[in-house]
Amino acid sequence: MNIKMVLNTVGKILIALGGLMLLPVAVSLIYGEKCVYAFIAAIGISLVLGYALTVLVKPRNTNMYAKEGFAIVTVSWIILSLIGALPFFLSGEVPNYIDAVFETVSGFTTTGASILKDVEALSRGLIFWRSFTHWIGGMGVLVFVMAISPTATDRSLHIMRAEMPGPIVGKLVPKAKETAKILYIIYIVLTLVEVVFLLCGGLSLFDSAVLSFGTAGTGGFSMKASGIAKYSSYVQWVITAFMLIFGVNFNLYFLILIKRFKMAITSSELWVYLCIVLASITLIAANISKEVGYSVSDSIRYSAFQVSSIVTTTGYATADFNLWPTFSKAILVLLMFIGGCAGSTAGGFKVSRVIMLFKSVKKEFGKLLHPRSVSTVKFEGKTLEDNTISGVTNYLAIYMICILLLFVGLSLNGLDFETNATAAITCFNNVGPGLSLVGPFGGFSCFNSFSKVLLSFAMLLGRLEIFPVLLFFTPATWVRTK
Amino acid sequence: MNIKMVLNTVGKILIALGGLMLLPVAVSLIYGEKCVYAFIAAIGISLVLGYALTVLVKPRNTNMYAKEGFAIVTVSWIILSLIGALPFFLSGEVPNYIDAVFETVSGFTTTGASILKDVEALSRGLIFWRSFTHWIGGMGVLVFVMAISPTATDRSLHIMRAEMPGPIVGKLVPKAKETAKILYIIYIVLTLVEVVFLLCGGLSLFDSAVLSFGTAGTGGFSMKASGIAKYSSYVQWVITAFMLIFGVNFNLYFLILIKRFKMAITSSELWVYLCIVLASITLIAANISKEVGYSVSDSIRYSAFQVSSIVTTTGYATADFNLWPTFSKAILVLLMFIGGCAGSTAGGFKVSRVIMLFKSVKKEFGKLLHPRSVSTVKFEGKTLEDNTISGVTNYLAIYMICILLLFVGLSLNGLDFETNATAAITCFNNVGPGLSLVGPFGGFSCFNSFSKVLLSFAMLLGRLEIFPVLLFFTPATWVRTK
Repeated sequence: MNIKMVLNTVGKILIALGGLMLLPVAVSLIYGEKCVYAFIAAIGISLVLGYALTVLVKPRNTNMYAKEGFAIVTVSWIILSLIGALPFFLSGEVPNYIDAVFETVSGFTTTGASILKDVEALSRGLIFWRSFTHWIGGMGVLVFVMAISPTATDRSLHIMRAEMPGPIVGKLVPKAKETAKILYIIYIVLTLVEVVFLLCGGLSLFDSAVLSFGTAGTGGFSMKASGIAKYSSYVQWVITAFMLIFGVNFNLYFLILIKRFKMAITSSELWVYLCIVLASITLIAANISKEVGYSVSDSIRYSAFQVSSIVTTTGYATADFNLWPTFSKAILVLLMFIGGCAGSTAGGFKVSRVIMLFKSVKKEFGKLLHPRSVSTVKFEGKTLEDNTISGVTNYLAIYMICILLLFVGLSLNGLDFETNATAAITCFNNVGPGLSLVGPFGGFSCFNSFSKVLLSFAMLLGRLEIFPVLLFFTPATWVRTK
Repeated sequence: MNIKMVLNTVGKILIALGGLMLLPVAVSLIYGEKCVYAFIAAIGISLVLGYALTVLVKPRNTNMYAKEGFAIVTVSWIILSLIGALPFFLSGEVPNYIDAVFETVSGFTTTGASILKDVEALSRGLIFWRSFTHWIGGMGVLVFVMAISPTATDRSLHIMRAEMPGPIVGKLVPKAKETAKILYIIYIVLTLVEVVFLLCGGLSLFDSAVLSFGTAGTGGFSMKASGIAKYSSYVQWVITAFMLIFGVNFNLYFLILIKRFKMAITSSELWVYLCIVLASITLIAANISKEVGYSVSDSIRYSAFQVSSIVTTTGYATADFNLWPTFSKAILVLLMFIGGCAGSTAGGFKVSRVIMLFKSVKKEFGKLLHPRSVSTVKFEGKTLEDNTISGVTNYLAIYMICILLLFVGLSLNGLDFETNATAAITCFNNVGPGLSLVGPFGGFSCFNSFSKVLLSFAMLLGRLEIFPVLLFFTPATWVRTK
């Protein structure tokens, strides 16, 4: 492996991280909070390390293949989390470093699971940073660096492939760098539109920004222990709509931008996603209206919010769905597995993979009935290669193995079955809340340090879609290229 | 589809069922029980229907392809369950027909989940029949008919493929009929050996037979509410050993018979199976000895019994593992998914499939690192075809989809998360007990009729490994051949 190239790129990421942390510094300064020193220290460490790696480690060649992509993404995300956690830890507001790392990993991976018992006691600067990590992690920090780095070449596509979620990662335009730029512009504009909508709802700029970061990155951190429950119906509906918007493949927005409406509107992933959302909203609304006794409009609002929040793996809550009937809870658990569309900021298994699985199973049906027949699987108008299909089914295999092992590992804690199972599912899929102790108004402070480390690793695995991280730890990756 | 051929074969199965029910008739007569009339009525219905189908429906051609195999297996298993339930229902001992069907499906599929609140109140004849269905279903009733039918041709391999569990079903000897015969002889001999061992432990012939049927079929029905808890350590160890023996691929016993010891002993499935068992026994014994406070020898005995019982999907219990620490319970849940070896009487996903999944994921690793490389997957010394591998990964896909949907369906009952989740897992994998309300000393009477029908269908899907049943309901299967 071209280790120098990897370290050099990681250096650039660290410099970018230092730059991004200037925003919470500004927030801390505005509110006159002491945590500003913690941020400055973290920025210092980030920049010094970043400078050292970029200036002192000069790669002799800039060749980058798949394995360099995996290594860069894995190392960057781990270092980002370790350094991003420093403001929490150095300010003394999260006194345990493991807790701080958990919170930061949860932020960057857009999970939104929290170990904080009293989020409202946190400084404004830290609350801002916490939600800003969602925004950074949502589209991907490496994609960000690609978009702004003057030296990004087309070889960087390997990085993009490793960081962007979904079974097929392609370029919107011939150059990877331009693709990254376009994606980030769409991302920024949509986030700003949400901020404006929330401002119109009477929220402060700070609250609007924090909630928009959480929505845009499909993260789920907010600044209130009560989540979104205390906000007006207008705000809840705005967030519902934007969660769904950020769960859609960003390629579709690009297609709309270049006026290829027909291609955008005929995306089968979009339609399946919308059907899943509508069906789930209907079933849960009917179930909670009957069993909990909410009014019809409340049932629809609660259900629409929660379904959008869970399927896009955001994790915001307007009601304690832990107290809902088991049928509604079971649907939410199912949605945790499915997740949003590929190429969005959402986590989970992804709608496109679910569609491909069904098509692959259908093909298997055909093979069993007519062993000698040859059939192809089509998706979004294109014939899928066997490699893509086996990539998806293999992803399912390693995904299920990881979740089951995580469940067994968590059970060492001695907590109840429902907590362990849903903690594993919700963290791996980057959703945030689970059921029982880790319900929407519960939290992850009930776990011991070992479990928190395990869950942090699981969140990273889930966000980076397993293969890059596991491949990084595979001996074959470590063969040195000339 | 060659419907006449299907109906004709189903007729033969019904006649065989009538014949098999003579055994519980004998038991009822010995104990002078009234339920004998219910058996005679059921035998009558079975024989009349079977006679009608075999004599009146004469197929013009005896062609049999994959789809006929699926149809025969699906229809037979459904009819077997509906008629096999009659003795319970007609005798009035299980007054609800849906309950009786659930119990019978649970028997034939070797699940061992029960709706009975007081099994000890049941007539001896019915207790015998209940466990005998395990024995019949374990190796497969169609395989049995193939073994004894004078007209079975090599085309019947399609039936065997559809009924026998595992990713690859082959013939031991050139003729399918001979293969079926050999398998049944091994099965009968091993069962008899267990009966002898249990008789040596001081058990009555009746108890020995019932427990041996439950072990051999990896079913789990017993004649006591306390399961195996009240029996001596000797009996518990004998059952432990035989559960493990019946969880091994029967092909290995055949290899031993024909003195190809080396081939038998180098089976990677066998070794992985034994490693899983040993590792689980060690972990659970350590965990329960520390947390529950059992003595070391008790911990090992309880753990060995429970691990063997769950991994082979038998479902017997010597302790209420529902009260064990969550770590032990989590391992047991993991084992429910894995199941025994292919070609055994055990259910679950099967060890060989787990191995193939890992190998397939490993291959994916290689493809991601070296996109242009071509690598093959080897299993048991043979190169696996891509079709076999995609068959396994597609099986995982449909398997997970079924379990998740079953979980959502069950949650309509309003019971707790742990009950619903483990009921879905345990029934689909044909294990028997789950956790919480459906724990080893609990039962399935807590579910409503809708859920019982759902669970019965799930047990059939799990036993027949999904595809035959789903294909039967696929329109393409119903195209008529000339």
